[in-house]
Amino acid sequence: MKVGVFTKRQSVTRHLGRLEGDVVIDLGLGDSVLSRDLVPRQGEEVPVAAVQWHLPFAVADYVDFYSSLEHATNMGRMFRPDQEPLTPNWRRLPIGYHGRSGTVVAGGTEIRRPSGQRKAGDFGPSQKLDFELELGFVIGKPSRLGEPVPVERALEHVFGAVLVNDWSARDIQAFEYVPLGPFLGKSFATSISPWVTTLDELPSVVGVDQDPAPPAYLRIDNFAYDVPLEVELNAEVVSRTNARHLYWNIAQQIAHLTSNGASLRTGDLLATGTISGPGERERGSLIELTWNEGPFLQDGDEVVLRGEGLAEVRGRIV
Amino acid sequence: MKVGVFTKRQSVTRHLGRLEGDVVIDLGLGDSVLSRDLVPRQGEEVPVAAVQWHLPFAVADYVDFYSSLEHATNMGRMFRPDQEPLTPNWRRLPIGYHGRSGTVVAGGTEIRRPSGQRKAGDFGPSQKLDFELELGFVIGKPSRLGEPVPVERALEHVFGAVLVNDWSARDIQAFEYVPLGPFLGKSFATSISPWVTTLDELPSVVGVDQDPAPPAYLRIDNFAYDVPLEVELNAEVVSRTNARHLYWNIAQQIAHLTSNGASLRTGDLLATGTISGPGERERGSLIELTWNEGPFLQDGDEVVLRGEGLAEVRGRIV
Repeated sequence: MKVGVFTKRQSVTRHLGRLEGDVVIDLGLGDSVLSRDLVPRQGEEVPVAAVQWHLPFAVADYVDFYSSLEHATNMGRMFRPDQEPLTPNWRRLPIGYHGRSGTVVAGGTEIRRPSGQRKAGDFGPSQKLDFELELGFVIGKPSRLGEPVPVERALEHVFGAVLVNDWSARDIQAFEYVPLGPFLGKSFATSISPWVTTLDELPSVVGVDQDPAPPAYLRIDNFAYDVPLEVELNAEVVSRTNARHLYWNIAQQIAHLTSNGASLRTGDLLATGTISGPGERERGSLIELTWNEGPFLQDGDEVVLRGEGLAEVRGRIV
Repeated sequence: MKVGVFTKRQSVTRHLGRLEGDVVIDLGLGDSVLSRDLVPRQGEEVPVAAVQWHLPFAVADYVDFYSSLEHATNMGRMFRPDQEPLTPNWRRLPIGYHGRSGTVVAGGTEIRRPSGQRKAGDFGPSQKLDFELELGFVIGKPSRLGEPVPVERALEHVFGAVLVNDWSARDIQAFEYVPLGPFLGKSFATSISPWVTTLDELPSVVGVDQDPAPPAYLRIDNFAYDVPLEVELNAEVVSRTNARHLYWNIAQQIAHLTSNGASLRTGDLLATGTISGPGERERGSLIELTWNEGPFLQDGDEVVLRGEGLAEVRGRIV
């Protein structure tokens, strides 16, 4: 099912809704699709054109992974051309970091161009504003502190999926990120689908070969979701790819995230990192599509992420 | 004032309380010191020995900075001995990253030794478990998305301060952290003071010289809090230092954090990063005190952080 939080025109009261074709079934008051079981309920039908969607759940912790081999390889080739493109840890564990959950917004929200230090002491509006095409998984069932989630049971914790635009200011990020990782280059805004698709609606396929074999706590037959994806920039499709290209799967990411005893909370958002495929037009960011030469996003540009079965994520730069 | 959330013996009902000497003034039901104005209220006096403290507020986003010049220099010397110890960005902006807010726990909580990849494919219990002595600032007044907080108004957003033990598994962190920063080496647990000291109770002093002068958005007469600090390991003081040594101040950190338009939420926790002073016994972590030779923390070890006017943070490794 596809579920979200909406208001009707000229109302501020938030309702839970289940999308069915062109109508939304009104499931009553609520501000998070994770707050109760939504399956069996029926209600008034509201035309989808008459609803305003909002953030579908409160984001607890937001983790962004780096699970596309092609994306990580592209970034390594651009920024560390004299070294192996992948760092020694990349094939051994799903690299990730925490992002800012307080600035996750619903698709449709306008994105203000961030300012920051583009070089030492040079503060001003980012001149390398970019999108990142990602999938995000929403945790619906928490886990306990000190109790790692086994990889084969990890999917029980996933409620559903959204598209994620992890907006990135490449100049701000480049100056700040050594040694503690991305911070202000990402934290100004992250847009997600305004409704959530439950996991049972995503078709899964056999995943890519993982070489070397992952360590035991990450070992599971690799799988991926077969979700065709595209990025539209000012009404023109600039990239088409598929989530099935991802190297690490969400079960491995959950097992890894909790392997040190960290707990999951309802509302945690685990994003895949930029999804790029092997082809030159299958790349999920402008920095890859233009090989860091730009043009990057201009004021007024509108980016739309689309994925089969998922709510589109729209954002205009202002 | 000093405020927290407590339960009385043999009760599970959480109350807000104001600590006054050896008694806690019961301010009525509540589970966050940020939920309402606590100043004028009076109530029943409960002996402090009869209360159990809990996490004093729900942590929204947790940011850990890296604002001790001495700590950053020590880490650079140990891990990049062939390079300048400070990265080029260090004196230009207060480096920071997001940590896991879902695993912030109240002081007194036992800490389970985390497992992780200590080297490629070598998964097991961390053999380099460490503490980090930090101060943390709690946001009491939010700011709006897209509206940077000017450095001279930043303190208006701070409710108070806590001590922070940012437990660190050095081996897990070393293998994982390039290029996206610390993740599982930190996320298993972060302990904070079980009550919060409001900012007006911390004596401030002139801060260290900042050279080069910070860019305009971070420019303010430097200040620091004069808070004597100590770390006790198994009942022996192993380090004594002071928060006044910090290079970057909390006003600059808030101005930096919001300079890209990111918002603050009530409950955001902004930690200073490890506080080390210039002397060899003024270092705030075992990796610095033993220059990465150990011994690191053993099972059964108990660490207590103390700071004048702040609630101690106790944690035993299990």
